[in-house]
Amino acid sequence: VSLLDDEIAEQPEALANFLDAEIPALGRFQPLLRDPDLRYVVVAARGSSDNAARYAQYVFGARLRLPVALAVPSVISVYKQPPRLDGALVVGVSQSGRSPDIVSVLEAAADQGRPSIAVTNDPGSPLAAVASEVLPLHIPAERSVAATKTYVCSLAALALLCSCGAEGAEARRAEGELRGLPPIVESVIRRAVSERDLASRFAHIENCAVIGRGFNYGTAYEIALKIKELSGVIAEPYSPPDLLHGPIAAIDQGFPVMVVAPEDATLPGLREIAETLSERGSDLIVISGDAFLHGIAGSAFTLPSQPQDWLTPMVTVVPGQVFAAQLARARGADPDHPVGLSKVTETY
Amino acid sequence: VSLLDDEIAEQPEALANFLDAEIPALGRFQPLLRDPDLRYVVVAARGSSDNAARYAQYVFGARLRLPVALAVPSVISVYKQPPRLDGALVVGVSQSGRSPDIVSVLEAAADQGRPSIAVTNDPGSPLAAVASEVLPLHIPAERSVAATKTYVCSLAALALLCSCGAEGAEARRAEGELRGLPPIVESVIRRAVSERDLASRFAHIENCAVIGRGFNYGTAYEIALKIKELSGVIAEPYSPPDLLHGPIAAIDQGFPVMVVAPEDATLPGLREIAETLSERGSDLIVISGDAFLHGIAGSAFTLPSQPQDWLTPMVTVVPGQVFAAQLARARGADPDHPVGLSKVTETY
Repeated sequence: VSLLDDEIAEQPEALANFLDAEIPALGRFQPLLRDPDLRYVVVAARGSSDNAARYAQYVFGARLRLPVALAVPSVISVYKQPPRLDGALVVGVSQSGRSPDIVSVLEAAADQGRPSIAVTNDPGSPLAAVASEVLPLHIPAERSVAATKTYVCSLAALALLCSCGAEGAEARRAEGELRGLPPIVESVIRRAVSERDLASRFAHIENCAVIGRGFNYGTAYEIALKIKELSGVIAEPYSPPDLLHGPIAAIDQGFPVMVVAPEDATLPGLREIAETLSERGSDLIVISGDAFLHGIAGSAFTLPSQPQDWLTPMVTVVPGQVFAAQLARARGADPDHPVGLSKVTETY
Repeated sequence: VSLLDDEIAEQPEALANFLDAEIPALGRFQPLLRDPDLRYVVVAARGSSDNAARYAQYVFGARLRLPVALAVPSVISVYKQPPRLDGALVVGVSQSGRSPDIVSVLEAAADQGRPSIAVTNDPGSPLAAVASEVLPLHIPAERSVAATKTYVCSLAALALLCSCGAEGAEARRAEGELRGLPPIVESVIRRAVSERDLASRFAHIENCAVIGRGFNYGTAYEIALKIKELSGVIAEPYSPPDLLHGPIAAIDQGFPVMVVAPEDATLPGLREIAETLSERGSDLIVISGDAFLHGIAGSAFTLPSQPQDWLTPMVTVVPGQVFAAQLARARGADPDHPVGLSKVTETY
């Protein structure tokens, strides 16, 4: 058993700790999210946190109708042109709070008197220091290099911020739904770990793709990143429309494609593309409770229970983490020591 | 000689036609880009046009300090929640103008009385019909499936819109720089085509990566997409920071990495990561005029001349197109009939 396995298993507890600590103290974020002059949100993030930022695009968009721009930090670091942020709320997501390029985006907000929120595991970090408000993740330092607990807690943090944009009964319902997450994540982990190892038959693959849509578009990116980091297999994330716009040409007989398909509004489109891929001879791996997808997949992770649609990404990513760790071991790699990776990347 | 080769060669003429037709008529866009209440830009696009949208993020950011949000059309199509667009200018980029999800984003703008611009090759398309203003690309219908002329003209269209945000001498200088592009693109095509075929030694690869930064981040995506579409080789685009945040673990001995490195502010960082990759045994292919990069690369495309930094993407993509076509032929594929692709993708 690796550190990574331990940390995957500790995710429900990490989520529960985070929610218990922060739900009672949400008041400080409400004025920022309910500001009538708020026009859009800028999210600055890298790596796994960037996949959490992709979730923010959908959750703020679908629940608050707020557009989200992902920051392009190199306009500051390379071109020395900080963005004009009138009308924006800036959110920086960084586990360590020490990525200089993420810090620079929140510095631009501070220079312009715009509000910002640091989502970080280190309330003493430079990112926290420059932010108007800090939303700490409350996770005892992650020991494995690949982010798992920090990823699901970053998602929960963004969902929590989104809930601050709602009022009255809607806000209370959102909090209740969030509080229901930990036991669901627990059940999915228990199920994924107890099933026979699905990755061993893929030990010799060079490539795969991961497909998700809407709230779970970022999940596809995160699972692909975990597979690349841990196993060295090249994994490409796609939404169904992006795949149809070209790259489907590169997918042929026996090509492994993982489909992230909770039972929500994205399911019909995912069934459709899964069927197309199956007809082209793809070897499908599904993360779903849907019987049709289980029927056409070569391998399937079950989702024994499912939260409300906007919270599914905290659940669907888990079988992907388990698969990535299994695949690493099947290929003789050590999931705790991925080649060429360090925990903090101080990008220039 | 394929249709694709012809169309690659016709790019300078297409650019010149587009610029000749549209530079004299830019006045209609100036009020939209100079509106003091403009807070940010939303760009809606798919496929190659989405790579042009990535360019928009950098060019509007670095030259006008305007944040750009890439639209996530499925908040409308899947979740039925059109974004609130106060403060936004919406730009839709679609060669055909017939992607329903791109049209839906401009419809949201129209419903809310917000301005929008359609960048399209079909002024009679549904996208053009719903937009406040149309910027047509003026290209006789592209015959090959893979977009080349429409891609560089879409980039030029976005650069032209960006120039409308500047005033006086700065605006005139930008127009002059744009008008200088066609002969530079011409010289780069002539050079890339006359050099010996660089792709033949890569005929048996399964994977590669393409790296670019800043204005050329989108170029890395576009070259990777061309390689995937035309040759079936899995090509992954990265910025240097994104590569260092994980996926570098999957890059080992002999792995082909293409580096898009014009001589601008992105060059020092690209030299650095190219050196790191070279030490890890990567097989580097560079698109650059830089002697250091030529020295450590296994294969190199020259850039005999180079426009101003913000216009380099219309030049650097060309050797990538040539490489993708060469690679397709080296693998026995027909560049004019990529497997599984059609010109218009009507995503649901």
